[in-house]
Amino acid sequence: MAMTGTEPGGGVSGLPTRLAALVGSDHVLTDPAAMSPYLTDYRGNYVGRALAVVKPANTQEVAAVVKLCSETGVPIVPQGGNTGLSGGATPLPDGLSILVSLSRLDRIRALDAANDTLCVEAGCTLAAVQEAAATAGRLFPLSLASGGSCEIGGNLSTNAGGVHVLRYGNMRELTLGLEVVLPDGRVWNGLRGLRKDNTGYDLKQLFIGAEGTLGIITAAVLKLFPAPNARATAWADVPDPTAAVALLARFRAACGDRVSAFELVGRQLLELASRHMPHSHAPAPSNWSVLVDLTEFSADASLLPLLEQTLEAAIGAGEASDAVIAASQSQADALWALRENANEAQKREGFSIKHDISVPVSSIPEFIARADDALRAWQPGVRIIVFGHIGDGNLHYNLFPPPGEDEATFIARVDEANRIVYELVVALGGSISAEHGLGQLKREAIVRYKDALELELMRTIKHALDPHGLMNPGKVL
Amino acid sequence: MAMTGTEPGGGVSGLPTRLAALVGSDHVLTDPAAMSPYLTDYRGNYVGRALAVVKPANTQEVAAVVKLCSETGVPIVPQGGNTGLSGGATPLPDGLSILVSLSRLDRIRALDAANDTLCVEAGCTLAAVQEAAATAGRLFPLSLASGGSCEIGGNLSTNAGGVHVLRYGNMRELTLGLEVVLPDGRVWNGLRGLRKDNTGYDLKQLFIGAEGTLGIITAAVLKLFPAPNARATAWADVPDPTAAVALLARFRAACGDRVSAFELVGRQLLELASRHMPHSHAPAPSNWSVLVDLTEFSADASLLPLLEQTLEAAIGAGEASDAVIAASQSQADALWALRENANEAQKREGFSIKHDISVPVSSIPEFIARADDALRAWQPGVRIIVFGHIGDGNLHYNLFPPPGEDEATFIARVDEANRIVYELVVALGGSISAEHGLGQLKREAIVRYKDALELELMRTIKHALDPHGLMNPGKVL
Repeated sequence: MAMTGTEPGGGVSGLPTRLAALVGSDHVLTDPAAMSPYLTDYRGNYVGRALAVVKPANTQEVAAVVKLCSETGVPIVPQGGNTGLSGGATPLPDGLSILVSLSRLDRIRALDAANDTLCVEAGCTLAAVQEAAATAGRLFPLSLASGGSCEIGGNLSTNAGGVHVLRYGNMRELTLGLEVVLPDGRVWNGLRGLRKDNTGYDLKQLFIGAEGTLGIITAAVLKLFPAPNARATAWADVPDPTAAVALLARFRAACGDRVSAFELVGRQLLELASRHMPHSHAPAPSNWSVLVDLTEFSADASLLPLLEQTLEAAIGAGEASDAVIAASQSQADALWALRENANEAQKREGFSIKHDISVPVSSIPEFIARADDALRAWQPGVRIIVFGHIGDGNLHYNLFPPPGEDEATFIARVDEANRIVYELVVALGGSISAEHGLGQLKREAIVRYKDALELELMRTIKHALDPHGLMNPGKVL
Repeated sequence: MAMTGTEPGGGVSGLPTRLAALVGSDHVLTDPAAMSPYLTDYRGNYVGRALAVVKPANTQEVAAVVKLCSETGVPIVPQGGNTGLSGGATPLPDGLSILVSLSRLDRIRALDAANDTLCVEAGCTLAAVQEAAATAGRLFPLSLASGGSCEIGGNLSTNAGGVHVLRYGNMRELTLGLEVVLPDGRVWNGLRGLRKDNTGYDLKQLFIGAEGTLGIITAAVLKLFPAPNARATAWADVPDPTAAVALLARFRAACGDRVSAFELVGRQLLELASRHMPHSHAPAPSNWSVLVDLTEFSADASLLPLLEQTLEAAIGAGEASDAVIAASQSQADALWALRENANEAQKREGFSIKHDISVPVSSIPEFIARADDALRAWQPGVRIIVFGHIGDGNLHYNLFPPPGEDEATFIARVDEANRIVYELVVALGGSISAEHGLGQLKREAIVRYKDALELELMRTIKHALDPHGLMNPGKVL
């Protein structure tokens, strides 16, 4: 039901004026220079155009904006911190949409310490939320590289994961309630702080991970956890991915849910890091390394001995060698920096074909071995960077051109590489987008790799909730 | 699109024959005596009628049955262990439905220890699933009173909770994938064992907790956890519910996520239990008591000292008195029996008006105080039984008639009592059905207490997925 310029009030061309009446003219951007940062994604892969960038102050203004867009048939692209990696928050180049930024909805609305809940608006940064929890002696465990700038609305819309999923779950598992502006501008208030509520369909689950295609999340009730007071970190070399998986099992059996992070780091990533960031002093690079964090609440000092014992037994069994245990917080931070420099080091190296995949943990070694073989056959000399959240089956598997090869030639072959990786992932029962969502980046690929009936069900839901297709068109489906 | 008896093949009257052709005549029950156990709910509150009870052997047979019913316009009532408490698995008295029992789908399909997942069919009992996990040295933490007979399909359809929710979450948080027969008979295979998968809408979340109104769950991939090897149990008297909430906070701060159960027990429940089960030796009943379990993975014996220290500090602060710490597994079991005899003791006492509610944990004391006042004003002498999973905000709040009052008179006033309780629950931001679901029991009440827009969204989803309204009519909505 899109309407044209004959609409009373000026239709699309009068829209910025009508939006300014709702949010104030300071918060409607139409100048190209002002709009530009909103119209490009974090990696610079997508550049879009929009009728305007609108920055409402609160839920009521968001609702009014959506209602107006709905009445004039103008699509909406919601955006949070603009740190997404799949182009999901970048408008299409057709310039037909309004971009709605949630960043001004940045209030922490309420903390209920006895109930371990925190009610926040969608524009709060993850860092602000973590800090609010810490101030109350609690932990909000979501932990991403982009924590300082990503916003809760975006975390929710992409069901963000991060390094602590194996202990605390994804954003979905950390959310008890939502407030959502629906595609027609009505506000659904589902802000409840209950851990048990079986009074019908769990509607919030539709909006979480929907990447803005079903409505705009404006606030959420988040779960808080006791803040651990003890942490022990170790970096260990492992002979191969099979040993890494065995080491994970050993840690789980010995330390239970103290294991709060378990990362695999391939040698090539360490070499990239030391080349581009010579100040990072890695232990002598082994082919494969594991970074593990144990955390707990402890009146005694038993965590470090537990870590030591577990590593000793692992070394005795041949699952690990040359382990380094952090003796202080700054040493722990330095070990983590080896892992966290990944993005920056790769960025400085140049273009890579990136994959964010998951397979069952038990299939990680098979995936790595078969993917390596297939990709070296596809391109001898290809440089394969493997690292990631092995504890929950999620790997980042990125490909750099062989030394001396032209980047443009390599870029041109991205579809071939994707097909090899994705077919293997799917054959192993995995996912072609573990964390980052489909956005624009994988909306075509998913059609090839997802069950047709499942896609049909998704379209049924989309049509039911957004019959005019105004929410974030060109994304996900 | 219901069709009448003029349908080729005999329509509704020929249905049992056509069903027998799909599942075998042994597995289609039409004899009233044979059907009877399926047509009454666990508490004997609902008696329904059905065209037949059908017992398919596997997913393909379930799909064929559903397809046939869909083509002939015959509604379907799915049923698992028939232990539900809201009449959700009992057909309506109109006798127009087919009851489909999932109990023969009882295979454990696969265990993946390294991935910590277990794939099971919907007809597996919870006990069988717990045992399969234990055999592999793992824990499946869902724990309900009806564990020996409730089935996983029912646990999923009602998003079952139980005593360990405060540590492990509800059934929803324990499920990674589903296989579902849709209302038209097609099978959606969403059986994935991935902890991270962001490739579109999380469709399984619609079917979990939908009480059979959107499709029939036939299999699921469940999460397994490391099995704790240490457990410490204590029973402590507390001065009042406010102290109980403070005690919970103290335990969380001192013991973190070792706290795996935290139950409140009111005196009246203990008195009922000792009246009907004289062999149960409760500690001298205090007005309020708390039962707490700590569990962990430990190479040392630090759990008991931790429990002792925490209780000592609590007693010093006046939050508790007269604590009993179990010195053995059988003592722990005896303490838990005091809590778990609840259902049986109440059953023997007679009729009660029951409530299964949740409020934010911080509001528990206010709820109990205000509900007590309001209900004693409504009916002086009413006996109020309070107990439940205070750790996650869920209370069972049941009313027995004053001594000497006629049960029938009391029963006739159930709507008045419900209104008092539910209005208070909603005013405190709570839920009128924390665990047991809406079923038939609360489908009318929920219209009064749930936001109209939310009900509209639920109907939109229902119409989108089950346009002909064949799945479990008269339940939930």
